[in-house]
Amino acid sequence: MPTSSIRYVAVEEYIAKIKQEVKARPEVEETPINSLTGRILAEDITSQTNLPPHAKSLIDGYAVKSEDTTDATDSHPAKLKIMGKIKLEKQPNIEVKNTEACYIPTGGFMPKGADSAVKVEDVMVSDDDLVTLSAPVQAGEHVTPAGRDVSKDQVVFRRGRKVRSEDIALLTALEIWSIKVVKRPRVAILSVGDELTDRIEATGEKKFAGISLAIASLVTEAGGEPVLMGVVPDDEAAIRGKIREGLDSAEALLTIGGTSKGPKDLVANAIDRSGSPGLILHGIDIVPGRVSGLGVVDGKPIVMMPGLIQSTVVAFYFIALPAIRQICGLNPEPIFKQVQVPIADDVTLRTPTTFRKLLFVKLVNRGGGTAAQPLSKLGEASLMKPVADADGFIVLPARVTSISRGEYVTVNLLHT
Amino acid sequence: MPTSSIRYVAVEEYIAKIKQEVKARPEVEETPINSLTGRILAEDITSQTNLPPHAKSLIDGYAVKSEDTTDATDSHPAKLKIMGKIKLEKQPNIEVKNTEACYIPTGGFMPKGADSAVKVEDVMVSDDDLVTLSAPVQAGEHVTPAGRDVSKDQVVFRRGRKVRSEDIALLTALEIWSIKVVKRPRVAILSVGDELTDRIEATGEKKFAGISLAIASLVTEAGGEPVLMGVVPDDEAAIRGKIREGLDSAEALLTIGGTSKGPKDLVANAIDRSGSPGLILHGIDIVPGRVSGLGVVDGKPIVMMPGLIQSTVVAFYFIALPAIRQICGLNPEPIFKQVQVPIADDVTLRTPTTFRKLLFVKLVNRGGGTAAQPLSKLGEASLMKPVADADGFIVLPARVTSISRGEYVTVNLLHT
Repeated sequence: MPTSSIRYVAVEEYIAKIKQEVKARPEVEETPINSLTGRILAEDITSQTNLPPHAKSLIDGYAVKSEDTTDATDSHPAKLKIMGKIKLEKQPNIEVKNTEACYIPTGGFMPKGADSAVKVEDVMVSDDDLVTLSAPVQAGEHVTPAGRDVSKDQVVFRRGRKVRSEDIALLTALEIWSIKVVKRPRVAILSVGDELTDRIEATGEKKFAGISLAIASLVTEAGGEPVLMGVVPDDEAAIRGKIREGLDSAEALLTIGGTSKGPKDLVANAIDRSGSPGLILHGIDIVPGRVSGLGVVDGKPIVMMPGLIQSTVVAFYFIALPAIRQICGLNPEPIFKQVQVPIADDVTLRTPTTFRKLLFVKLVNRGGGTAAQPLSKLGEASLMKPVADADGFIVLPARVTSISRGEYVTVNLLHT
Repeated sequence: MPTSSIRYVAVEEYIAKIKQEVKARPEVEETPINSLTGRILAEDITSQTNLPPHAKSLIDGYAVKSEDTTDATDSHPAKLKIMGKIKLEKQPNIEVKNTEACYIPTGGFMPKGADSAVKVEDVMVSDDDLVTLSAPVQAGEHVTPAGRDVSKDQVVFRRGRKVRSEDIALLTALEIWSIKVVKRPRVAILSVGDELTDRIEATGEKKFAGISLAIASLVTEAGGEPVLMGVVPDDEAAIRGKIREGLDSAEALLTIGGTSKGPKDLVANAIDRSGSPGLILHGIDIVPGRVSGLGVVDGKPIVMMPGLIQSTVVAFYFIALPAIRQICGLNPEPIFKQVQVPIADDVTLRTPTTFRKLLFVKLVNRGGGTAAQPLSKLGEASLMKPVADADGFIVLPARVTSISRGEYVTVNLLHT
């Protein structure tokens, strides 16, 4: 494409191009249950069994036939003979017959014949092993039926899910001991700019390219393996060399900086001359981040992220993250959890723009409820503190220039 | 304390006892910037400098004195002589005088004398290095003042913060290359129950103690280092032996199961006979989880968590997590991010109780907005799928028995 012109297209166009042009290379690896947290499932998890496998008691007490208790009152109690005792996790092969009761602990599997359970504190037990009930028990009372938690053949977790700590308990209950997860694709990260250095503890004239470390950590969270390629100066041939190196050693390349249209913005040309199809899109209709772009070479994505932190992370959320998900064989559409909350302050923009505007917000307590406190202002994409403090972001449509305090906004939650 | 009686106290009483009885052992370790994500800061981070250190241009264009442009119009434009060029990150030692302009890139430090910047696309530049402006520029326009992002001596991050990916960029900008973080305290995890085994791929009579793996992962998320102690049968002497082993090898011990008052619930007694002060609290006024408890021996906490998954995680959130934070020298009060959303379904409890009731919920889209879908029901604390599916939980006050669809509830967000 002609690299001289920037066309500010919707994020949907990026997603469409990512689906079309970026090759899915979904490599998987079998991973044991105890190192699954944070990994991304490469397969749907389908239950082979009912959970619980049999009906279970919800209480410590006695398993009974409810029909034996229908007429029980204080003056005419039901008296049932204790015929046995259920042990936890043992599948009982005993059967409760009429006028019988069986001791059962919380979580014990119900014996045959019994359809309900009565709490130990709701009965009297006499020395001759008789249980006395002075009120009826409903059929099914205090019993969980087989399959109540998960039924056989149910899809428990979908491909693409990021495994959370709590999932592990359920997986072990289903006797799943290892799972195919998406192998972390290697994602190269290249900082571009004469003013930058990759030497930590740099002082003086050059600034350490610290945004690359934040992006590396976001790549890890996204299920990728970051490969830090350091810094390249504003020199097109040098940038092309690094792009080639990145494409040779990784499944994706993210560049940071040099994406605008000044004399030093050489990344677009460098990408376009690095192979086919080259630069595909340059510009997105959201600020900060509008001079982001996307190239593809040999099916591998090159995401051009601007160098000011707020722009960089916006490009990461809307372009890099979808591209990484596409490589992993997952749906690249961006999905943020959303909540509607009142905004805590007036927001006023100086002039209407045709861009959508993204503002970082923090969830704060106002008058007993949660509100969204705007942290960032348009035109200040270099401010880092708002990004660190944000619980999420809101997006104002094109041409909207103000929101009044108390108006409801939709917050896209980060880190959930 | 007498171990025979359970007293259902408020979570605040647990927090108070944790503050009183659990010894803070805040060990720290210096950690480099590139492995900070997820670690917990052991110190406040105070900025030694202004960020940006000097006023900066927000645009590509020219730094000017706004007073030179006050009367500029189409017919009477201001003409300024280009006297130099700012390079990124170099602190300029040039000064813009009246009728002069200086080329400046986005992010460049402002030269002395100039108080504003004008966009390259808003001016004409002639071959004789004259910049022509046909409208005035406001003082401060397109300029970020020094310290706008972070000011010198500002506390940027507080002790106790869990470092997020985005923080790293800000820390490097402040030239902070390593930080003291809380050393992960060792947290032993012991499963109790004749029905359990710690042999993965167990089949047949015994059930794998899978909840311990979920809790181990939650301990890691909380900043601790889990130590899996396996399974001990329902035998008080054996439990006491394991408690001793756990206290010898870890800073805290979490037990799972055997916390109720049945004949096999021996953990309370075992804790009370393991040292001084022994069992401190048994019972909490929230369900699921009401038979949780807390013991302390030699300043180390022993958290008694019930064995049904929903009860276990509730005990983890409200007792274990505060205890771990106390050990780390942090404020143990539980803090969940909260949002108010309508509930997606009616909730009806059969009978009023004096307990607060915790229900797991999922954030779902209803009619264009986010609502909280209840996933769990009281009395079904063994169901695992609601815990895995939950985005958060709501807490119903004592005696409340119903919420109508559409009513606003406060959701405590998990994993944020």
